[in-house]
Amino acid sequence: MQLPSIEVIGYIAAFCTTSSFLPQAILTIRTKDTKSLSLSMYSLFTIGVSLWLIYGIYKEDLALIWANSITLILSGIILSFKITNMVKSFLEKSRLKK
Amino acid sequence: MQLPSIEVIGYIAAFCTTSSFLPQAILTIRTKDTKSLSLSMYSLFTIGVSLWLIYGIYKEDLALIWANSITLILSGIILSFKITNMVKSFLEKSRLKK
Repeated sequence: MQLPSIEVIGYIAAFCTTSSFLPQAILTIRTKDTKSLSLSMYSLFTIGVSLWLIYGIYKEDLALIWANSITLILSGIILSFKITNMVKSFLEKSRLKK
Repeated sequence: MQLPSIEVIGYIAAFCTTSSFLPQAILTIRTKDTKSLSLSMYSLFTIGVSLWLIYGIYKEDLALIWANSITLILSGIILSFKITNMVKSFLEKSRLKK
Protein backbone atom coordinates (compact mmCIF):
# COMPACT_ATOMS: atom_id res chain seq x y z
CA MET A 1 0.00 0.00 0.00
CA GLN A 2 1.31 3.40 -0.92
CA LEU A 3 1.04 6.06 1.79
CA PRO A 4 -0.63 9.34 0.75
CA SER A 5 1.84 12.08 -0.13
CA ILE A 6 2.54 14.68 2.54
CA GLU A 7 0.81 17.32 0.39
CA VAL A 8 -2.43 15.30 0.54
CA ILE A 9 -2.10 15.12 4.35
CA GLY A 10 -1.70 18.92 4.40
CA TYR A 11 -4.88 19.38 2.36
CA ILE A 12 -6.84 16.99 4.59
CA ALA A 13 -5.53 18.88 7.64
CA ALA A 14 -6.61 22.15 6.02
CA PHE A 15 -10.05 20.71 5.26
CA CYS A 16 -10.53 19.44 8.85
CA THR A 17 -9.48 22.58 10.75
CA THR A 18 -11.30 24.91 8.34
CA SER A 19 -14.50 22.82 8.40
CA SER A 20 -14.46 22.69 12.20
CA PHE A 21 -14.59 26.49 12.19
CA LEU A 22 -17.46 26.65 9.66
CA PRO A 23 -20.50 26.01 11.96
CA GLN A 24 -19.55 28.95 14.23
CA ALA A 25 -18.91 31.16 11.19
CA ILE A 26 -22.23 30.24 9.52
CA LEU A 27 -24.15 30.76 12.78
CA THR A 28 -22.61 34.20 13.35
CA ILE A 29 -22.98 35.31 9.72
CA ARG A 30 -26.63 34.20 9.73
CA THR A 31 -27.66 35.64 13.10
CA LYS A 32 -25.12 38.51 13.33
CA ASP A 33 -25.22 37.76 17.06
CA THR A 34 -21.73 38.23 18.51
CA LYS A 35 -22.63 38.75 22.18
CA SER A 36 -21.10 35.49 23.37
CA LEU A 37 -17.91 35.91 21.33
CA SER A 38 -14.78 37.38 22.88
CA LEU A 39 -13.28 40.39 21.04
CA SER A 40 -9.75 39.74 22.34
CA MET A 41 -9.90 36.05 21.43
CA TYR A 42 -11.14 36.71 17.88
CA SER A 43 -8.66 39.56 17.35
CA LEU A 44 -5.77 37.33 18.44
CA PHE A 45 -7.05 34.47 16.27
CA THR A 46 -7.48 36.71 13.21
CA ILE A 47 -3.98 38.21 13.63
CA GLY A 48 -2.59 34.67 14.05
CA VAL A 49 -4.34 33.37 10.92
CA SER A 50 -3.08 36.41 8.91
CA LEU A 51 0.48 35.69 10.04
CA TRP A 52 0.12 31.97 9.16
CA LEU A 53 -1.05 33.10 5.71
CA ILE A 54 2.03 35.35 5.27
CA TYR A 55 4.18 32.45 6.50
CA GLY A 56 2.51 30.06 4.03
CA ILE A 57 2.96 32.49 1.12
CA TYR A 58 6.64 32.98 1.97
CA LYS A 59 7.19 29.22 2.26
CA GLU A 60 5.15 28.65 -0.93
CA ASP A 61 3.12 26.10 1.04
CA LEU A 62 -0.23 25.66 -0.74
CA ALA A 63 -1.98 23.74 2.09
CA LEU A 64 -1.13 26.53 4.56
CA ILE A 65 -2.18 29.22 2.04
CA TRP A 66 -5.55 27.56 1.32
CA ALA A 67 -6.39 26.78 4.95
CA ASN A 68 -5.52 30.22 6.24
CA SER A 69 -7.08 32.19 3.36
CA ILE A 70 -10.49 30.60 3.93
CA THR A 71 -10.23 30.83 7.72
CA LEU A 72 -9.09 34.47 7.48
CA ILE A 73 -12.13 35.40 5.38
CA LEU A 74 -14.47 33.70 7.89
CA SER A 75 -12.82 35.05 11.05
CA GLY A 76 -12.51 38.50 9.44
CA ILE A 77 -16.27 38.56 8.79
CA ILE A 78 -17.01 37.46 12.39
CA LEU A 79 -14.58 40.05 13.80
CA SER A 80 -16.10 42.84 11.69
CA PHE A 81 -19.59 41.88 12.94
CA LYS A 82 -18.30 41.92 16.52
CA ILE A 83 -16.75 45.39 16.10
CA THR A 84 -19.81 46.77 14.25
CA ASN A 85 -22.10 45.49 17.04
CA MET A 86 -19.87 47.03 19.70
CA VAL A 87 -19.82 50.41 17.93
CA LYS A 88 -23.61 50.28 17.42
CA SER A 89 -24.17 49.42 21.09
CA PHE A 90 -21.81 52.26 22.16
CA LEU A 91 -23.62 54.79 19.95
CA GLU A 92 -27.00 53.59 21.21
CA LYS A 93 -25.88 54.03 24.83
CA SER A 94 -24.53 57.55 24.22
CA ARG A 95 -27.77 58.47 22.42
CA LEU A 96 -29.84 57.26 25.41
CA LYS A 97 -27.68 59.21 27.86
CA LYS A 98 -28.46 62.51 26.10
CA MET B 1 14.76 48.74 9.29
CA GLN B 2 15.26 45.01 9.05
CA LEU B 3 12.10 42.95 8.65
CA PRO B 4 11.69 40.03 11.10
CA SER B 5 12.71 36.69 9.64
CA ILE B 6 9.92 34.45 8.39
CA GLU B 7 10.64 31.99 11.19
CA VAL B 8 9.84 34.70 13.75
CA ILE B 9 6.55 35.40 11.94
CA GLY B 10 5.76 31.68 12.15
CA TYR B 11 6.38 31.66 15.91
CA ILE B 12 4.23 34.78 16.44
CA ALA B 13 1.47 33.14 14.35
CA ALA B 14 1.79 30.00 16.49
CA PHE B 15 1.62 32.07 19.67
CA CYS B 16 -1.51 33.96 18.49
CA THR B 17 -3.60 31.01 17.30
CA THR B 18 -2.61 28.81 20.27
CA SER B 19 -3.29 31.59 22.80
CA SER B 20 -6.69 32.31 21.27
CA PHE B 21 -7.64 28.69 21.99
CA LEU B 22 -6.38 28.80 25.61
CA PRO B 23 -9.37 30.51 27.37
CA GLN B 24 -11.79 27.82 26.07
CA ALA B 25 -9.34 25.06 27.05
CA ILE B 26 -8.75 26.47 30.56
CA LEU B 27 -12.50 26.95 31.11
CA THR B 28 -13.30 23.37 30.03
CA ILE B 29 -10.41 21.81 31.95
CA ARG B 30 -11.41 23.73 35.10
CA THR B 31 -15.16 23.14 34.95
CA LYS B 32 -15.17 19.83 33.02
CA ASP B 33 -18.43 21.15 31.53
CA THR B 34 -18.63 20.12 27.88
CA LYS B 35 -22.39 20.41 27.34
CA SER B 36 -22.18 23.36 24.95
CA LEU B 37 -19.31 21.87 22.93
CA SER B 38 -19.95 19.97 19.72
CA LEU B 39 -18.48 16.44 19.53
CA SER B 40 -18.26 16.44 15.74
CA MET B 41 -16.60 19.87 15.64
CA TYR B 42 -13.99 18.96 18.27
CA SER B 43 -13.32 15.58 16.67
CA LEU B 44 -12.75 17.20 13.28
CA PHE B 45 -10.57 19.91 14.83
CA THR B 46 -8.47 17.37 16.77
CA ILE B 47 -7.98 15.19 13.67
CA GLY B 48 -7.03 18.32 11.70
CA VAL B 49 -4.49 19.47 14.29
CA SER B 50 -2.97 15.95 14.43
CA LEU B 51 -2.57 15.99 10.64
CA TRP B 52 -1.01 19.49 10.71
CA LEU B 53 1.43 18.14 13.30
CA ILE B 54 2.37 15.18 11.05
CA TYR B 55 2.69 17.66 8.16
CA GLY B 56 4.92 19.94 10.26
CA ILE B 57 7.14 17.05 11.38
CA TYR B 58 7.53 15.85 7.80
CA LYS B 59 8.35 19.37 6.56
CA GLU B 60 10.67 19.90 9.58
CA ASP B 61 8.79 23.12 10.26
CA LEU B 62 9.31 24.05 13.92
CA ALA B 63 6.59 26.74 14.08
CA LEU B 64 3.99 24.27 12.79
CA ILE B 65 5.27 21.55 15.16
CA TRP B 66 5.13 23.81 18.24
CA ALA B 67 1.73 25.35 17.45
CA ASN B 68 0.06 22.03 16.69
CA SER B 69 1.65 20.06 19.55
CA ILE B 70 0.33 22.48 22.16
CA THR B 71 -3.08 22.80 20.48
CA LEU B 72 -3.32 19.00 20.12
CA ILE B 73 -2.70 18.49 23.85
CA LEU B 74 -5.40 21.06 24.72
CA SER B 75 -7.99 19.88 22.19
CA GLY B 76 -7.23 16.24 23.08
CA ILE B 77 -7.98 16.96 26.77
CA ILE B 78 -11.24 18.76 25.86
CA LEU B 79 -12.28 15.93 23.52
CA SER B 80 -11.55 13.28 26.15
CA PHE B 81 -13.69 15.22 28.68
CA LYS B 82 -16.49 15.44 26.12
CA ILE B 83 -16.39 11.69 25.42
CA THR B 84 -16.11 10.80 29.15
CA ASN B 85 -19.13 13.01 29.92
CA MET B 86 -21.14 11.44 27.11
CA VAL B 87 -20.32 7.90 28.30
CA LYS B 88 -21.15 8.84 31.92
CA SER B 89 -24.47 10.38 30.85
CA PHE B 90 -25.29 7.31 28.74
CA LEU B 91 -24.53 4.93 31.64
CA GLU B 92 -26.57 7.10 34.03
CA LYS B 93 -29.56 6.99 31.67
CA SER B 94 -29.38 3.21 31.23
CA ARG B 95 -29.12 2.79 35.02
CA LEU B 96 -32.24 4.92 35.55
CA LYS B 97 -34.20 2.95 32.94
CA LYS B 98 -33.69 -0.32 34.85
